[in-house]
Amino acid sequence: MKWQDLAQQPCSVARTLAVIGDRWTLMILRDLFLGANRFEHFQQSLGIPRTTLSERLRLLEREGVVRKLPYQEKPTRYKYRLTAKGVDLYPVLITLVQWGDKYYAGEAGPPVVHHHKRCGHDFSAVLTCSECNGAISPFETEPRSGADYPGLLEQRANIKA
Amino acid sequence: MKWQDLAQQPCSVARTLAVIGDRWTLMILRDLFLGANRFEHFQQSLGIPRTTLSERLRLLEREGVVRKLPYQEKPTRYKYRLTAKGVDLYPVLITLVQWGDKYYAGEAGPPVVHHHKRCGHDFSAVLTCSECNGAISPFETEPRSGADYPGLLEQRANIKA
Repeated sequence: MKWQDLAQQPCSVARTLAVIGDRWTLMILRDLFLGANRFEHFQQSLGIPRTTLSERLRLLEREGVVRKLPYQEKPTRYKYRLTAKGVDLYPVLITLVQWGDKYYAGEAGPPVVHHHKRCGHDFSAVLTCSECNGAISPFETEPRSGADYPGLLEQRANIKA
Repeated sequence: MKWQDLAQQPCSVARTLAVIGDRWTLMILRDLFLGANRFEHFQQSLGIPRTTLSERLRLLEREGVVRKLPYQEKPTRYKYRLTAKGVDLYPVLITLVQWGDKYYAGEAGPPVVHHHKRCGHDFSAVLTCSECNGAISPFETEPRSGADYPGLLEQRANIKA
């Protein structure tokens, strides 16, 4: 199966990964969240070939994750800004960071800590339930087929049997 | 810069993506969280070439994200199970799913909903602060250089200037 086909699957992970599931793209997003916003920033920070970088930024722009804004005329130069849709990726990046901090930081500890300006403390992010506010554990949750996809999970389970 | 080099950077995102930042790997993890556990499951579900699948599973095993367990003898057959380290990726997968649900589900709504068995409701996951329990917004947080990495972010900002 090609990635193109996988993106057509009724699966929000597959569709999401068709947009941001490239490592370079996720590194560009990391840089955007750390404040970088120009082509040259990303290039220097990541050492990524110009054509690859252009391509990834174009995809992010086309999908409405970043917006390109002119910041200089003659010659026109652009900077990139996360849209609301892009900012909504914050939980993905933060949870990726935390997993890396836990398992790959080594003795020196996390390279970057995250400060909650509102309460004045460095924090780790806790996943909680929108309904009961309790912390979410995968052992207490269960995936179910969506309303318009009756039997989707059962069907998949059958394929696998 | 090669991925191998990027993984050496003091960045938990880079290190994490060196392990799970491949789209197929993330799809395998999705399947594991949905209950799949055999080589053939993944192959049928993803339509991924056997060699690619073997390679991805070997990496996950080597990094301690999954464990390979025999479930049959003569011939010996194996199933894969998420380790504690693997289960710790749940927040990454859930936040990926939610972003996809929000922006790519279309009119039919989310293909899969997530049920919190503990409280009895379908939920969405909310990112909260470990210190004040408030919901986390990227506009109220700030990255800072870790204790053993003085000036890391300032240094990066200089490179980018």
